[in-house]
Amino acid sequence: MNGAQALIRALVDAGVDVCFANPGTSEMHFVAALDAVPEMRGVLTLYEGVATGAADGYARMADRPAATLLHLGPGLANGLSNLHNARRAGTPVVNVVGDHATYHKRFDAPLESDIDAIAGAVSGWVRRSDSAAQVASDTAAAVAAAFGPPAQVATLILPADVSWSEAGEPAAPATAAGQSDTTGQVSAEAGEAMAAAAKALRSGEPCVLLIGGDATREAGLRSASRIAIATDAKLLCETFPTRLERGVGLPAVERLGYLAEMATYQLGEAKHLILAGARSPVTFFAYPDKPSDLVPQGCEVHVLAEPSYANAALATLADEVAAGTDAPLAPSGHIELPTGELTAETSAIVVGALLPEAAVVVDEANTSSLFLPTATASAPRHDWLTLTGGSIGYGLPAATGAALACPDRPILCLEADGSAMYTISALWTQARENLDITTIIYHNSAYAILRMELQRVGAVESGDRARALLDLSGPTLDFVALATGMGVPASRATTAEEFSDQLARAIAEPGPHLIEAVVPSIVP
Amino acid sequence: MNGAQALIRALVDAGVDVCFANPGTSEMHFVAALDAVPEMRGVLTLYEGVATGAADGYARMADRPAATLLHLGPGLANGLSNLHNARRAGTPVVNVVGDHATYHKRFDAPLESDIDAIAGAVSGWVRRSDSAAQVASDTAAAVAAAFGPPAQVATLILPADVSWSEAGEPAAPATAAGQSDTTGQVSAEAGEAMAAAAKALRSGEPCVLLIGGDATREAGLRSASRIAIATDAKLLCETFPTRLERGVGLPAVERLGYLAEMATYQLGEAKHLILAGARSPVTFFAYPDKPSDLVPQGCEVHVLAEPSYANAALATLADEVAAGTDAPLAPSGHIELPTGELTAETSAIVVGALLPEAAVVVDEANTSSLFLPTATASAPRHDWLTLTGGSIGYGLPAATGAALACPDRPILCLEADGSAMYTISALWTQARENLDITTIIYHNSAYAILRMELQRVGAVESGDRARALLDLSGPTLDFVALATGMGVPASRATTAEEFSDQLARAIAEPGPHLIEAVVPSIVP
Repeated sequence: MNGAQALIRALVDAGVDVCFANPGTSEMHFVAALDAVPEMRGVLTLYEGVATGAADGYARMADRPAATLLHLGPGLANGLSNLHNARRAGTPVVNVVGDHATYHKRFDAPLESDIDAIAGAVSGWVRRSDSAAQVASDTAAAVAAAFGPPAQVATLILPADVSWSEAGEPAAPATAAGQSDTTGQVSAEAGEAMAAAAKALRSGEPCVLLIGGDATREAGLRSASRIAIATDAKLLCETFPTRLERGVGLPAVERLGYLAEMATYQLGEAKHLILAGARSPVTFFAYPDKPSDLVPQGCEVHVLAEPSYANAALATLADEVAAGTDAPLAPSGHIELPTGELTAETSAIVVGALLPEAAVVVDEANTSSLFLPTATASAPRHDWLTLTGGSIGYGLPAATGAALACPDRPILCLEADGSAMYTISALWTQARENLDITTIIYHNSAYAILRMELQRVGAVESGDRARALLDLSGPTLDFVALATGMGVPASRATTAEEFSDQLARAIAEPGPHLIEAVVPSIVP
Repeated sequence: MNGAQALIRALVDAGVDVCFANPGTSEMHFVAALDAVPEMRGVLTLYEGVATGAADGYARMADRPAATLLHLGPGLANGLSNLHNARRAGTPVVNVVGDHATYHKRFDAPLESDIDAIAGAVSGWVRRSDSAAQVASDTAAAVAAAFGPPAQVATLILPADVSWSEAGEPAAPATAAGQSDTTGQVSAEAGEAMAAAAKALRSGEPCVLLIGGDATREAGLRSASRIAIATDAKLLCETFPTRLERGVGLPAVERLGYLAEMATYQLGEAKHLILAGARSPVTFFAYPDKPSDLVPQGCEVHVLAEPSYANAALATLADEVAAGTDAPLAPSGHIELPTGELTAETSAIVVGALLPEAAVVVDEANTSSLFLPTATASAPRHDWLTLTGGSIGYGLPAATGAALACPDRPILCLEADGSAMYTISALWTQARENLDITTIIYHNSAYAILRMELQRVGAVESGDRARALLDLSGPTLDFVALATGMGVPASRATTAEEFSDQLARAIAEPGPHLIEAVVPSIVP
């Protein structure tokens, strides 16, 4: 077999059997090798940012990486911002980037660029495979690096001649990497952190337990919730969790607010902040004359566990400080469907009322998401995926990947209009693969969050020309036309009743659908 | 004034008065400053790749840079591939990238990333502005660096606090940079190169004169054409010129072929290859068992001039070896409009017949462009812009920028379907700014060039699964729906007659139009 075949064989042997691809000439042998290794599913995207965002969404739900296939430095660059989000999510991605043949690089052909520098900005691991004989072991190493812990983006650069050269017989499959059990991996250092956290929780002083990483799934939530109940600590979840399990039958957790004002209120007068898989809170951006660090004055920060070990650490801590305490669980509730005006608020109530069992919710609704957490708190059990790295354009791709990871679950993608346009061609891949995704576009015809930020950064001197640069109303985007133009059935809702009807129908029917929800911006 | 106002004022003072923007929170003071410096025109794009491609297209036609405004590392990453094309084009771009406040960076907030590393991959010049007092001089330096020579991408990184801090009184405007006259800048070294080229041309041995850079405009073409006629040298132009002036009344020049087989045929048995602004020819990609270097064996390569000095060098050389010789000029011709099937060939004939006077043609038709150079050779005088860096998705943005640079000229964008989808939201900006652009989408439902490359790289083992990854037919993209969804009137042509009618109408009417030309792929 040639190097490309060896690579795909090694991926499949390590459990990576989906590849989100947008190939070019230097990847043609990889493409051809898909016929030799039929266990690999190649999924075509029309833009690299869709491929990388899909790989992120896939891994968040499959708990194992997908591969990407990107074309040289420019293809990698096009996929970079969603790899940035994956990096911040701590998602495993095996990022395969084709390169010119080794002997061709010195000619500085038009597509030559510094792939290594670009890859380094988002990857925890970068390797250039130098020979076909090494491809299989390089691939196994890439998969192992992606799994971690910590899970990360692992970039394997594949020169064209390494792809097409003879790689010899396949090596024995590498041991499936990274699926080691992290429970109980509590080192001596972790033991000290544990003792400090327990001491703080028992001190009688106000404590906040801030969770993230692998603690935002059921087991971690149960432990954290038990700890909070038993010790009267306040439980918060990081602002943008990678994957938050929630809904009926699970402990509810409040997310730390995006706005510094809100986060400061939530953290209150805490004297101890215990971090379990979350990072110490800072503002998303700097604002004139406001602190970046959100930790209250006089509050001690205790790092209980890094993101990959938070669940295990919380289990141990719960045994110590909350033995015999049960976690309170979110009850189910009946929600009346609203009527009348369609707004961010009424649309959120509809989503809460109609959210199907076992849904995966991909949230990039930005300002329009304000009412969603509350409105969906008593919905059937579901997963909530968020924009971890702040780089917009993740939603439609991530939903695409999540649907491939969870073919039996309904996917709901809550998407802001401005963000949707970044990677709109994901809809085509959703149609091509007939994925069961309902996309709601919150169409408020503005970069509404920037209207808010323009005020918050104190840019008081701004006027009509500044405001025009945040306005998406001229011309008005027609998302029904855009979706149908890519093969996704679509409709437009302008009242709460229309939205309820259309959402119920979209959820009931298999395959992709899009609803353009025309809502006023919550920011005037 | 604050740093942002000082920056925009310095740009305007240096002649940079268009900014293609997709801002975020860290750029809000720049956005606000647009009201304070009304001479700057802010053009909103829905994606950074549109902003950077537009800056490239603008500069190719305006002969001066536009600015971009990009949001942090991810925004820069989204714009990187079209900056790669600009780098290969030798286009001046002042690339402004916002960053977190200087004191905020250490908190590693979610959008923090290594901007400098990413910028370095495409920029000839990178500077981080450290204080508001320095912004004006840093900006002047960025503009000067962008102009060159050589013209290049100059990236200025602007921390948010530098934007919002007091910058003091504006400095005196910097001298308009880079617009120095390069004629006559022939150094001693250049004199030797000139003598060597003249000697080669007089040797009686077969010579090829390969031009590029600033020699593909009228003056350079006239000099080169006179030299070729007088010395019996073969005149060729680089494969992907930045801006080629052509049509009636100008010397015609053949472009070096993209396919190695074609280029090898064109270079023939040359014993001397004289490079005037062009690089020594290499294959775009490596192919198994084929050389990357296209220079014929035994052929001596003479570098007459770098891209910024080619026109001047050719003028001098023409005086020496072609005194009294006139350049032959392309005659006008009447082209009969074809009827019947719409193909790459018949559509090319229609374009040649209907191309309006002074058109700017942006060519990203890829395989569908095969017949265009011949079909348009006797069309009225026009400019032809090509994909210099090989990174697809440049066409729609570059047309947008060219239209802003040349508001009185008709713009014709010849666009492949697969490439169009990379930066399709450029259509929205075209509608928003009411730009006189006619976009032709060659809709063959395939990455046709990759079908060809799959064969050429010898991937004979490929089958249906490989072929599916190059296929865009399921679902069929509806470009009429996509364009109208973004406010651009559109129609679909399936016969030569329909195409002629629609193209004539689109050219006659002001504002943007799109024609979806349904053509079979030239690659089976």
